Amino acid sequence: MIVWALLTSVGINLGLCLLFFTLYSILKKQPSYLDVYAPRLVAAKEESEQRNGFNFERLLPTAGWVKRAWQPSEDEFMSATSFDAVVFIRIFIFSLRVFGFAGIVGVVILLPINYLGTQLDADSSDLANKSLDSFSISNVKDGSKWLWVHFCAVYIFSGVVCYLLYYEYSYISSKRIAHYYSSKPQPHQFTILVRGIPVSSGSSCSETVEKFFTEYYPSTYLSHSVVRRTNKLQRLTSDAKKLYRRLVHLKSETNPQRRSIRDGFCGLFGHKVNVLDHYGKKLETLEDNVRMEQLSVAGKEVPAAFVSFKSRLGAAVALHIQQGTNPTEWVTERAPEPQDIHWPFFSSSFIKRWISKLLVVVAYAAVTILFLIPVVIVQGLTNLEQLETYFPFLESILSLTVVSEVITGYLPSLILQMFIAFVPPIMIMLSSVEGCISFSQIEKSACIKMLCFTIWNIFFANALSGTVLYRFDIFLDPKEIPGILADAVPAQLLIVYAPKYDTGGRFWPTVHNSTIFSLVLMHIIAIGIFGLKNLSLASSLIVPLPILTLLFNEYCRKRFLPIFEDYPLECLIKKDRQDQNDPTIAVFYNKLSTAYEDPALMPIRHPRSTDDHNSPLLQAGV
Amino acid sequence: MIVWALLTSVGINLGLCLLFFTLYSILKKQPSYLDVYAPRLVAAKEESEQRNGFNFERLLPTAGWVKRAWQPSEDEFMSATSFDAVVFIRIFIFSLRVFGFAGIVGVVILLPINYLGTQLDADSSDLANKSLDSFSISNVKDGSKWLWVHFCAVYIFSGVVCYLLYYEYSYISSKRIAHYYSSKPQPHQFTILVRGIPVSSGSSCSETVEKFFTEYYPSTYLSHSVVRRTNKLQRLTSDAKKLYRRLVHLKSETNPQRRSIRDGFCGLFGHKVNVLDHYGKKLETLEDNVRMEQLSVAGKEVPAAFVSFKSRLGAAVALHIQQGTNPTEWVTERAPEPQDIHWPFFSSSFIKRWISKLLVVVAYAAVTILFLIPVVIVQGLTNLEQLETYFPFLESILSLTVVSEVITGYLPSLILQMFIAFVPPIMIMLSSVEGCISFSQIEKSACIKMLCFTIWNIFFANALSGTVLYRFDIFLDPKEIPGILADAVPAQLLIVYAPKYDTGGRFWPTVHNSTIFSLVLMHIIAIGIFGLKNLSLASSLIVPLPILTLLFNEYCRKRFLPIFEDYPLECLIKKDRQDQNDPTIAVFYNKLSTAYEDPALMPIRHPRSTDDHNSPLLQAGV
Repeated sequence: MIVWALLTSVGINLGLCLLFFTLYSILKKQPSYLDVYAPRLVAAKEESEQRNGFNFERLLPTAGWVKRAWQPSEDEFMSATSFDAVVFIRIFIFSLRVFGFAGIVGVVILLPINYLGTQLDADSSDLANKSLDSFSISNVKDGSKWLWVHFCAVYIFSGVVCYLLYYEYSYISSKRIAHYYSSKPQPHQFTILVRGIPVSSGSSCSETVEKFFTEYYPSTYLSHSVVRRTNKLQRLTSDAKKLYRRLVHLKSETNPQRRSIRDGFCGLFGHKVNVLDHYGKKLETLEDNVRMEQLSVAGKEVPAAFVSFKSRLGAAVALHIQQGTNPTEWVTERAPEPQDIHWPFFSSSFIKRWISKLLVVVAYAAVTILFLIPVVIVQGLTNLEQLETYFPFLESILSLTVVSEVITGYLPSLILQMFIAFVPPIMIMLSSVEGCISFSQIEKSACIKMLCFTIWNIFFANALSGTVLYRFDIFLDPKEIPGILADAVPAQLLIVYAPKYDTGGRFWPTVHNSTIFSLVLMHIIAIGIFGLKNLSLASSLIVPLPILTLLFNEYCRKRFLPIFEDYPLECLIKKDRQDQNDPTIAVFYNKLSTAYEDPALMPIRHPRSTDDHNSPLLQAGV
Repeated sequence: MIVWALLTSVGINLGLCLLFFTLYSILKKQPSYLDVYAPRLVAAKEESEQRNGFNFERLLPTAGWVKRAWQPSEDEFMSATSFDAVVFIRIFIFSLRVFGFAGIVGVVILLPINYLGTQLDADSSDLANKSLDSFSISNVKDGSKWLWVHFCAVYIFSGVVCYLLYYEYSYISSKRIAHYYSSKPQPHQFTILVRGIPVSSGSSCSETVEKFFTEYYPSTYLSHSVVRRTNKLQRLTSDAKKLYRRLVHLKSETNPQRRSIRDGFCGLFGHKVNVLDHYGKKLETLEDNVRMEQLSVAGKEVPAAFVSFKSRLGAAVALHIQQGTNPTEWVTERAPEPQDIHWPFFSSSFIKRWISKLLVVVAYAAVTILFLIPVVIVQGLTNLEQLETYFPFLESILSLTVVSEVITGYLPSLILQMFIAFVPPIMIMLSSVEGCISFSQIEKSACIKMLCFTIWNIFFANALSGTVLYRFDIFLDPKEIPGILADAVPAQLLIVYAPKYDTGGRFWPTVHNSTIFSLVLMHIIAIGIFGLKNLSLASSLIVPLPILTLLFNEYCRKRFLPIFEDYPLECLIKKDRQDQNDPTIAVFYNKLSTAYEDPALMPIRHPRSTDDHNSPLLQAGV
């Protein structure tokens, strides 16, 4: 790749950035897009008053929101959204620090050294047509003493990253504990999920659970909700909901013409009341079915239950100590937050879950490995000579410099990105089949799958198939990375981010591990480069670095990871004692005992009488 | 190797077996060897009455003890020794079943098929000089249909072994739980070891522990013993013990002449009372030093303590839930049995333990890898031609058939065995430096190290350096293995085995894992052999077998392993409730609170006055 091609690519990216920035500035000010750009405000019903009424200022792009996005403090974030948002911001700050340091070292120290090297025969003094390799370590003379600067850069960079990692881990850990202390009692802190309940033929699942926990947890056991097979009921309920929404929409429609256009089949009646009646009757039948199914579902018990305790310690004891003599019975796991439960895939049997997990692993491996084949084939097409051979009529267009620059510098990565866009849905699908019981688990599992997939496909497979040295220098001169990353700045997290669940920052260890992985990879690459550059002493002196990095990682695992897995007994007991003095705890216990009811089993409430809030609209239309 | 060489080897082994059998039969009847052959009886003070008095029958070898060794039932074993002994017997029975089945299939089905093959050109009809390869799978014609019999044998053998493994795992699991239910309250069931106690500058370690556990375990906390730095004290105590033993022995010696010979230095005095006085004074000084050190040791607290609870559940909760917000503080682990504690290596600091563990891993890897070098060099010397070159004068001896057979068939493995004899002490040394706090941990760790070492060195390294196919056929015709194993029959476990500690059969999972490893290795070898034999269909059809075996292993890990790690809550609570109705529990609690005192801190009791039991001997000598 020559400098000109790089500049083309940078130019296109900058142009797109500017375009998106402008569009964002304008669109976010349009009231009709409030749902998209400020879902949290909408959710909190703080609807803007200026929804109606036109204003010319709305069409001008502004940059004030960038400043506002950086203003809120961490505590404001924590109280306004969730702890996860704070950790996300910390990840962002950590990344900026790492790339900032690497960028400065790369541009100020390493880049001049590389450029002043004489290894590559600089055939042209024209900067624009110079190969990018002149700026990379390949331009430094083999065995040159200047390579020791690169060597020092590797050591210093690793040290700085490890220091930053340690600092963040320690900071986030202490914040996590502080957040826990300040949190209100929440159902999932008091509840565990029990699977593999050994139901004997004479009694029901509910009785078995009640008997077991009143026997072994007489002082802390509070209540339980047995899980029921509600697939059919969920289908019916969601049908009813859809139909109800349609009905409401139809009632709110003031123009009878559009109503009949929108509903071709109903248009035959010619009178809107008939249409509404038809839908209303359909909905009534559906609701009757739902009620009948709700009654029949009571018998469809799954040998799993959410068991709630009076104290966090009680739940922790049940979670951490094996319950029954058969380890495949009374299997306990953390309960997700009630709103986070993924009811449809509540598969129950131990063996079934296990087999589906195995199948998912196999499918995942297949997707990851086979994904490369179409990508390589399509990327091969972007090779100019091949394109000209296959499509001779393109020859005249391809001979234009701009077109060829765009194709060689931009198209391959664009095609790769397009293919990659298909992968996350596949990963989410795999994760939901895996037997996860909550959306957060599904998302976490899909994210980890996606991460491994990306590391494998984008980095390894691509690096191995491409020019190895060219791909390498991104690590030693990581000046481009901040630019790439800067695209991803999360604007105004406080307004956009509506947390569905709170993991308490449990994704930080993943970030930590990925960084350690990248560091070790960098060390291995450095060993290779110094070897190629005839500086075998530097190669051998790098060897302790990955070992030290892994030891550092092991220390962090011991020092911090347990904090992200469970809250310690000290915290549990302190919080429990706080609760004992809290007069509202009885109210909470009441709420807790129904928190883990399957929403499909709730009585349906679809207001259709004249006193509901849609009626005025209907009357206005009549 | 030809048949004759094998027969020589078998002959030598059988001869040695017979010799050892005869020697054992005779020696075990000699009263003076009672300590060696029946330590349990001696320990139980059931000393044989026939210690004196000569009997001619004692010199005749007999075989009755073999029958008696197999008579006791498992329950007798359990009550007489420990649960570990029962598991050991089960391992033995399991091995006999596996090798019995393999032996029958190998000898009755596979051996004839191999022998009737025509792949190897049978150049001699003389059975004795035939190569052993004629009996191995290499003699079956490439691509022959008879190979499918071998294929079936692999599947059937794997299936039978997995069935036996499952049966044993399930059997031992249920016995382990039953043993726990029937066990008396034992100190280690109620106690945990706490390390990394964060002692603040104002208070002592003991106060910190007391405060923490009375705060967080108000209902179950019983007592604690802080660990103290007693290295010096232990040295002094063991010196005092040695001196005391010498003194007792000297007093019991009736012949003054021998006394002075045995003690050259003391022989100068010429009068035994002087010698005794000298030692007596020395012992008194030593004992004074011990008492002074015991007083000064009180201040040398290590930030670790044994904490005892009133219930097993209390101990389990403290063991399983992280205690403090800093995971490197208040680190809990299972307490070993009091007599099992390895006090000298009670290193305390978290970092120190961790670093020493790492160093041990490095040392272990070095030993394992470097061990092969001397072995290969020495084994190379046994090559006949090389021997003749280095030592020309041996030529005439080496030309004798018997000598050359012994050297090629027996010497290499003998040299290997000799080298291996040095390894266990090294492994035990490594494990005790590792920071293990009990003898059982040290032994377990050393055993696992030894197992990996053996697998690596004896199997892989040896197989890779030797003729690969020859080593292979031991797997498909495992007829020799029972013979080799039969040497190791544990005679009369009931009399010989004096349990120092009881792991509750925790070594069974190791046996299980090793068997699974061997099975998978066999599958891989089978894939290779069928490939070499031009039967690629059989090769591919074997592939699912290792996968199925590993899945089976994974299932067993989930189904049974947790039982071997901890006792479930159900058991803990049932046992605790039993104890509540036990009137002797108060006495046990009293004993419990002092059970984990360092023996070095106990008051010394060396009876030296005239009323001790050695005095009569002394008076008889005067």
